[in-house]
Amino acid sequence: MGLFPKDTNFYDLFERGVGKVHEGAQALADLVKDFSNVPLKAKRIKDIEHEADLITHETIEKLNKTFVTPLDREDIHGLISSLDNILDHVEAAADKFSLYRIPEVQPDAVLLTDVLIHSVKEVQTTIGKLRNLKDADLILKHCIEINRLENEGDFVYRTAIAKLFEQGGDPLNVIKWKEVYDSIEDAIDSCEDVANVIEGVTLKNS
Amino acid sequence: MGLFPKDTNFYDLFERGVGKVHEGAQALADLVKDFSNVPLKAKRIKDIEHEADLITHETIEKLNKTFVTPLDREDIHGLISSLDNILDHVEAAADKFSLYRIPEVQPDAVLLTDVLIHSVKEVQTTIGKLRNLKDADLILKHCIEINRLENEGDFVYRTAIAKLFEQGGDPLNVIKWKEVYDSIEDAIDSCEDVANVIEGVTLKNS
Amino acid sequence: MGLFPKDTNFYDLFERGVGKVHEGAQALADLVKDFSNVPLKAKRIKDIEHEADLITHETIEKLNKTFVTPLDREDIHGLISSLDNILDHVEAAADKFSLYRIPEVQPDAVLLTDVLIHSVKEVQTTIGKLRNLKDADLILKHCIEINRLENEGDFVYRTAIAKLFEQGGDPLNVIKWKEVYDSIEDAIDSCEDVANVIEGVTLKNS
Repeated sequence: MGLFPKDTNFYDLFERGVGKVHEGAQALADLVKDFSNVPLKAKRIKDIEHEADLITHETIEKLNKTFVTPLDREDIHGLISSLDNILDHVEAAADKFSLYRIPEVQPDAVLLTDVLIHSVKEVQTTIGKLRNLKDADLILKHCIEINRLENEGDFVYRTAIAKLFEQGGDPLNVIKWKEVYDSIEDAIDSCEDVANVIEGVTLKNS
Repeated sequence: MGLFPKDTNFYDLFERGVGKVHEGAQALADLVKDFSNVPLKAKRIKDIEHEADLITHETIEKLNKTFVTPLDREDIHGLISSLDNILDHVEAAADKFSLYRIPEVQPDAVLLTDVLIHSVKEVQTTIGKLRNLKDADLILKHCIEINRLENEGDFVYRTAIAKLFEQGGDPLNVIKWKEVYDSIEDAIDSCEDVANVIEGVTLKNS
Repeated sequence: MGLFPKDTNFYDLFERGVGKVHEGAQALADLVKDFSNVPLKAKRIKDIEHEADLITHETIEKLNKTFVTPLDREDIHGLISSLDNILDHVEAAADKFSLYRIPEVQPDAVLLTDVLIHSVKEVQTTIGKLRNLKDADLILKHCIEINRLENEGDFVYRTAIAKLFEQGGDPLNVIKWKEVYDSIEDAIDSCEDVANVIEGVTLKNS
């Protein structure tokens, strides 16, 4: 033990943070699978996002008070900020369902949310491996998988938009759905941003 | 005084830069409050953006010629680049009003621009405190406030879009207004990006 | 020669990477100039994007195995990731032409793709100069040119969108074209992101 032991509690904060992200993404998946009581479920997701914000602020506070950090300060900051972004987009998707009074769900929303859930689980696994950065090959493999899921998300997203165009009908309905799909896809993109931060951290410390 | 005194003029450049951002945001707020002579006012905002670009280039030039910088070179670069982005989006919003020949203003544009003005003022205050990075608690508090304003902007933005959908009417008009609101919201998001850079700098140097 | 000679092969990887970006952007320019066999040409661009992905993964693998790198690890990672993004957006544009069954090309798509080609060529030239970072003034001049092209892209983009509005007609057609233009503009924006990374690297090492 040195004079300034590295504070491992940052890892606890990461894990609690990504736990909230998982909780929020799961709540969104539940919402699109059972499209009832939408405003209430959207409100619950907003609450989860708020709880995650508190973890983010706690992490930043801790960074500010901690002398020796287990990872570079800017990487801890980048990691917690990019995690935060995932939930922002999840919350936006839920809020749009409610605010835009979307009457019924498109089946593709379930598909796209499935990709999001897979990606968030992969992010959760990867963050769980940060305590042992020496296992770089394994961590980088997970990051590649998150990248692959982002590509899969792109495909599902574009196919969903193409279907909206084919169905035709009220253009305002198309725009509303594009807005919702955009937010879910942004959430998946943000998982890739987290993977990028982790990839960078791993390469720096391996 | 050491052999290579730290060059405090970088702070002057940041303050001149954020001053231009404030000038541009204020000009946009004036435009939406008095929606006349739109092309002329949009042109004026483009000029302000160009003046800010010159400050950005001067900062980069100075970085390139300066041996010892008061903050890490990448942080100075990140700060000035993210400041630059705010005005890019302000200019885009003004340009779209003009180019898309939008005939009259929506009241929500005033509300959203108000959030932008608050956020830009907060950014200006925070940048004014960078000369004294030891006052980390205060700087971080301002960053949290900029984050809060970004959330408020999200709310105003989504409510404005929901109203466009409720009003119904010409879908092209809805798309035009979404484009304008997107640019104002992007400007508010860019304020949060500046806050993120400042937060990172503060945590690194505190 | 020191004990750990710097590995210059990273520069080869950057040059092969940006070569693929140029190949993909050129294929997109060819597609919009001769708008026939769109699905086949879009497939070819997807293949190019996949080839570029392999170079990205090879670079990350190499970073993971290399002890002394010619640039900071995070900068190599940032450079290769932002290069990768350009092709992602090029591929998205091509895919949308195909998926959304767009029947004929708008002349502005040719203009916007021309800006993209110019910007990609400029990125290619700039990356070719990274082996000699001491020539900072020249590199920074190229970065300013890439910024200027991004502004030009903004102008062409907004004018193209304004024309879609003026033409009026089917709103779904307007939305489809906005989607395509968005992807081409995102590709141009990603060129600016590469320039930002290069600018940062240059300022740090000059």
